[in-house]
Amino acid sequence: MLSDALQAAIDNKTKPLGSLGMLESLAHWIGLIQRTVRPALRQPAILVFAGDHGVVAEKVSPYPQDVTWQMVENFLAGGAAINVFARQHGCTLQVVDAGVNHDFAARAGLVDRKVGYGTRNFASEPAMTAEQCVLAMARGAELVAGLNGNVVGFGEMGIGNSTAAAALMHLLTGAPLADCVGAGAGMDAAGVAHKREVIERAVAKHDVTAPLDVLATFGGFEIAMMAGAMLAAAERRMVVLIDGFIVTSALLVVARLQPAVLDYCVFSHCSDERGHRTMLEHLGARPLLQLGLRLGEGSGCALALPLLQAAVNFLCEMATFESALVSGKDA
Amino acid sequence: MLSDALQAAIDNKTKPLGSLGMLESLAHWIGLIQRTVRPALRQPAILVFAGDHGVVAEKVSPYPQDVTWQMVENFLAGGAAINVFARQHGCTLQVVDAGVNHDFAARAGLVDRKVGYGTRNFASEPAMTAEQCVLAMARGAELVAGLNGNVVGFGEMGIGNSTAAAALMHLLTGAPLADCVGAGAGMDAAGVAHKREVIERAVAKHDVTAPLDVLATFGGFEIAMMAGAMLAAAERRMVVLIDGFIVTSALLVVARLQPAVLDYCVFSHCSDERGHRTMLEHLGARPLLQLGLRLGEGSGCALALPLLQAAVNFLCEMATFESALVSGKDA
Repeated sequence: MLSDALQAAIDNKTKPLGSLGMLESLAHWIGLIQRTVRPALRQPAILVFAGDHGVVAEKVSPYPQDVTWQMVENFLAGGAAINVFARQHGCTLQVVDAGVNHDFAARAGLVDRKVGYGTRNFASEPAMTAEQCVLAMARGAELVAGLNGNVVGFGEMGIGNSTAAAALMHLLTGAPLADCVGAGAGMDAAGVAHKREVIERAVAKHDVTAPLDVLATFGGFEIAMMAGAMLAAAERRMVVLIDGFIVTSALLVVARLQPAVLDYCVFSHCSDERGHRTMLEHLGARPLLQLGLRLGEGSGCALALPLLQAAVNFLCEMATFESALVSGKDA
Repeated sequence: MLSDALQAAIDNKTKPLGSLGMLESLAHWIGLIQRTVRPALRQPAILVFAGDHGVVAEKVSPYPQDVTWQMVENFLAGGAAINVFARQHGCTLQVVDAGVNHDFAARAGLVDRKVGYGTRNFASEPAMTAEQCVLAMARGAELVAGLNGNVVGFGEMGIGNSTAAAALMHLLTGAPLADCVGAGAGMDAAGVAHKREVIERAVAKHDVTAPLDVLATFGGFEIAMMAGAMLAAAERRMVVLIDGFIVTSALLVVARLQPAVLDYCVFSHCSDERGHRTMLEHLGARPLLQLGLRLGEGSGCALALPLLQAAVNFLCEMATFESALVSGKDA
């Protein structure tokens, strides 16, 4: 059994049993994903999907919608947090226009997969048509098919998307809406209460329960594209690195469609955005980092990458008790 | 004020206020240590101090004492966890014989600062003389004076040293002994109970309260050498990176002698060894990682290094709202 062989390899390393904690379960997990006792991470990539949300018309974000495209420009110029962290770890970064409400000048580094100029306002009508939702997912899957590596991290940018993610969480996990709605990019308490009311009314309006219907009705182009990309990445046996609240909301959809995808997921961190911890518990996930991050962009994925590498490295490079001639426990 | 300037620099970066969580406080902290709004980490080094403990005669460890020197050989051969993680992060590693009960063949990579062939058994007599304790501290300070970088992480190896550290914790924090004694390298419940009894009797025997007396009576050569090294590192305004239970026990001594040293400390992780969380709370410390590690060797320091680098990098490399032409919050 591969699982037993992995555990034996981990236990024979020159360290007290279990003393590398979560790195040991991570090494085991990656070994299972790659079906080997000597896993390797090749060319990790982070895909940042950007999209706009019609629901911003309901004033659910403290930032204007233009910040979505302005931050895409910032990604392209290399000035955002995810640029800094991806550079630090030698990680490829792709910025994907999944559906930003802006015409970008074509240029290297921007992957144009625009499905539309932002979704519709789900307070009054479904955010996407079923066709748009399927198209976004298919484009996400295609993008993953074009990657050369075996690790893909997911990030996103989209003013209003914590509102979409909260609606998805509520409908897909059954958690009370109050536990799903947080401050996002920085709403005050009154703003959060308003955001909750907006979602509450919309949920009452649209009678949807099937995961794809929920996604089309409340999601975003970037969320649907991530969902498609996650499905494709798991099919290709890649390590699927999950970021914060929005990315995990895409995974909630995927987990309902194809629960086996969870076997390929590594959870980079627990965000400070209200709801993320509950989402992770719902998925049975143990996050690697707990740094109080709530930025998105895939920043948690980039920060967790060295831990994935450390897990693989100790498994492949550490000496065993036998090879190092180190005594074991007294009998 | 430097602190205000640092906070302003952090807040002007293109991200929601506070959204990088602990990385923001870390960047602020390192800026204060280096007295600049543009801190930089130069040539981080991890020093692993090895020493033996006479108290192993009381059967407080499941491993034979020989494992101390065998693991030193493993460090020198590059096969231990700390070697793997230090290599991964391009971090200098120095292995210091502070007082191992073994004659090593001289060789490159082994720093010989041996104070003795292991301490005495504190169950019957003080572990060190006052002179040995001072000598160990002085040698630690000297070692730090020879470093070229501005970040130093501390690690240790010594069969029996979790027993010494538990005694230090009990006497220096006042925590009940039951909260200070853990499984170390893997004692079972009966073994932990025995370990506690050994310390209990020794504490009743030796009437010491001053930090240096406590250190000399119950500590180890590697613990005393780390304490001296920490004092010197803080004097040189270096970032002092703290590992797990044993390393933090050395810091407990230092914090009593010179509390300002804490201003230079970054706490890499919270260990699974019982007592470490309480130690950290006693020091008002917030650890970066919580991975269930309990290995020592400075492994937590090495794993936390990329987070220190990320903190410095975002502060120095991220665009500001002005420079990236990104809109701020709506008025």
